[in-house]
Amino acid sequence: MYELFYWPSIPGRGEYVRLALELAGAPYSDVAREPRGIEAMQRVLADRELAHPPFAPPILRSGALLVAQTANILLFLGDRHDIAPREEGAKLWAHQLQLTMGDFLVEIHDTHHPVSSALYYEDQRSEARRRTGAFLDARLPKFLSYFERVLEHDPGGAGGLCGAQLSYVDLSLFQTVEGLRYAFPRAMRAREAHCPRILALHERVRTEPRIAAYLASPRRLAFNEHGIFRHYPELDTTG
Amino acid sequence: MYELFYWPSIPGRGEYVRLALELAGAPYSDVAREPRGIEAMQRVLADRELAHPPFAPPILRSGALLVAQTANILLFLGDRHDIAPREEGAKLWAHQLQLTMGDFLVEIHDTHHPVSSALYYEDQRSEARRRTGAFLDARLPKFLSYFERVLEHDPGGAGGLCGAQLSYVDLSLFQTVEGLRYAFPRAMRAREAHCPRILALHERVRTEPRIAAYLASPRRLAFNEHGIFRHYPELDTTG
Repeated sequence: MYELFYWPSIPGRGEYVRLALELAGAPYSDVAREPRGIEAMQRVLADRELAHPPFAPPILRSGALLVAQTANILLFLGDRHDIAPREEGAKLWAHQLQLTMGDFLVEIHDTHHPVSSALYYEDQRSEARRRTGAFLDARLPKFLSYFERVLEHDPGGAGGLCGAQLSYVDLSLFQTVEGLRYAFPRAMRAREAHCPRILALHERVRTEPRIAAYLASPRRLAFNEHGIFRHYPELDTTG
Repeated sequence: MYELFYWPSIPGRGEYVRLALELAGAPYSDVAREPRGIEAMQRVLADRELAHPPFAPPILRSGALLVAQTANILLFLGDRHDIAPREEGAKLWAHQLQLTMGDFLVEIHDTHHPVSSALYYEDQRSEARRRTGAFLDARLPKFLSYFERVLEHDPGGAGGLCGAQLSYVDLSLFQTVEGLRYAFPRAMRAREAHCPRILALHERVRTEPRIAAYLASPRRLAFNEHGIFRHYPELDTTG
């Protein structure tokens, strides 16, 4: 039984871990969403006795092990469950893709918070407009083309980013596309024509039985204007 | 014999890999710094035949394996050489710290490029001033206190971030402190009094024989205003 610690009101980075746990069919408790759960998470974050203190959520507890950093948690879960390749080179490749996804997420987040996460969006609106313009113009196409290019190399043609079987990286790409569609519906409509393989993979993940059941459950959180993916119509331009 | 591919004129993220290779005593060629080396790197980046294309440098070639993403390369080198713990939990912990260092680096870089990496600093100066203010005020202390707090848990008191022996994470902390001192000498002078353990570890890395020899060699690149760590005096305030 795993314990996941993550902010209860946003999908955020926690959702990348949840999707992996759901595909693995691994039992977990979503601690901060339970009664007095936020206090439990704050206790972990403030615990001065921990030899391996996490810097920030998401955090996964597995017995005596406390693992933080999204990509690190997924690396750990990939070793334990059948949701990542096992051979050394393929395992590093999956992790490499996940780290690139993490870089993408930072850039997505910073479109609405280019000055500071400690300030409101409203206090960095003009900077956000400039940053988002540059993001939609250059970075969004660059990241999406990269993942599309990786999928072109799939020998079978119906597989995921690192082989025929679905891996945690495929789930992450699914979630990122979901978030981008929420945050930038206009810009994404313009981009999607260039990413047929990403869309096919997105559909495969969406209809995978365990994932489909999860998405239909109350465990799945909706996007909102407190997380990484935020919909501010004035930022959603098509250049 | 490893081949490292990284931009030849900046220390950047490549330096985190170089330091690990140097501590490991592993032979490597720094491809892009050799004659026609940039073309060789561009060929790797443009190669449409690669099944595992890297998104960006640094990239490490080891035989048939091409590994990218700084933290991923260090994870790989940690498995091959005696520069990281081997036991699963300790190995994940080292990697977790490295990923947090990577987050720190993104924030350091974005102080001078809060709008877009494709624009000159001069074209995002006012945004940079705001972002750097928030960084020096809140984020720099938060990250440094975190690493200081981790070192407080070192049972021996003279060790590194993940055990008595020096690991790639200790080298990374050294390099980050070096870069911060270059970029923000005034702000760092004010912070360093709060980080005695980080400074002791920095000194231990600096005087480690292989690292000391490397630092004195022409292989070591100086910081400059093209990399992650840039010194713009107008940004270096103490709040």
